[in-house]
Amino acid sequence: MEDMFAKQMAFLIEVDKLKQIERKTKIIGGARYENDAEHSWHLAMMALILQGHANENVDLLKVIKMVLVHDLVEIDAGDTFAYDTKGHEDKHEREMNAAKRIFGLLPQEQEAELMALWLEFEAKESAEAKFAGSLDRLHPMINNHLNDGDTWQKFGITSSQVLKRNSEIANGSEKLWAYAQDVVRKSVEQGILEEE
Amino acid sequence: MEDMFAKQMAFLIEVDKLKQIERKTKIIGGARYENDAEHSWHLAMMALILQGHANENVDLLKVIKMVLVHDLVEIDAGDTFAYDTKGHEDKHEREMNAAKRIFGLLPQEQEAELMALWLEFEAKESAEAKFAGSLDRLHPMINNHLNDGDTWQKFGITSSQVLKRNSEIANGSEKLWAYAQDVVRKSVEQGILEEE
Repeated sequence: MEDMFAKQMAFLIEVDKLKQIERKTKIIGGARYENDAEHSWHLAMMALILQGHANENVDLLKVIKMVLVHDLVEIDAGDTFAYDTKGHEDKHEREMNAAKRIFGLLPQEQEAELMALWLEFEAKESAEAKFAGSLDRLHPMINNHLNDGDTWQKFGITSSQVLKRNSEIANGSEKLWAYAQDVVRKSVEQGILEEE
Repeated sequence: MEDMFAKQMAFLIEVDKLKQIERKTKIIGGARYENDAEHSWHLAMMALILQGHANENVDLLKVIKMVLVHDLVEIDAGDTFAYDTKGHEDKHEREMNAAKRIFGLLPQEQEAELMALWLEFEAKESAEAKFAGSLDRLHPMINNHLNDGDTWQKFGITSSQVLKRNSEIANGSEKLWAYAQDVVRKSVEQGILEEE
């Protein structure tokens, strides 16, 4: 029992490091880069507010658990940029090793639960994983739109790349995909995203 | 329907500001101050992992919703330091006005849900609110302990102040209160918290 509690606290202390994993997207207003912990909180808020727009009925608690833990592997594996083809080659292997180490700090039952949640999120097959994935893809699009194109400009990303990369939003929510396409259209109109 | 969605998105964009509300506590390692969004994410993780240590059975989804939204009022009202007596005099009024404005961005039904969650958290009467409150109090103690006393040192906080301020942890979890007292005892032994 004491050992179980010690493991839980060790895990909760370790995951503080998520606050130091920087993403490629800035917070709204552009003052600084966003980190994974803030991003995960924001996805949980999005799940709470936007659940009614999922294509299928979703178990909200499960969606929230998924988004809370979905980026923990980046404590070891780092943030792989969405448009970095090379980085994606060994992404799964790097992240699987990270998952084993980080979830492995927990008591066995909770280790199994978090590993299962993360694998389900990665597989994008269940209704919850598809919806969580939609939120994860939509979130940086909103920030880039409100930050004058930010990451798109910096890396020369075009509208067709954004649409291709994020089309899986439709798998979780047709409503959010329509909104995302609207964000792309407006961004092109505003001259902050190159049309191609 | 479209109006409802627009309100939801306006709210989700507004709450990005939580990432710019600095707390008095630093992240573990002490590199910089923690912000409210990261803190809220960490409490949600704590709820997920430590739910079994609550005094009463709790509805985990409700606890998580509470901790996700509990600090949103600080977007307008700012972070009131735990040991700032003066700041606490008008804290409730400032935060109530903030709650009305920020939750008021949402469609009516969700506005009512978030307002109710926040008021329940503030009242600390339900099992969920008591447990969420325990996590909220415990979290900065862990960081201060691991950051060589940090905030305690900076503001000359003593062990009796820490114990008095945080004794309500026991209302949500006797287990976490025993752990918190242990943190205080160790901190005094290590000379990073003044005994008094």
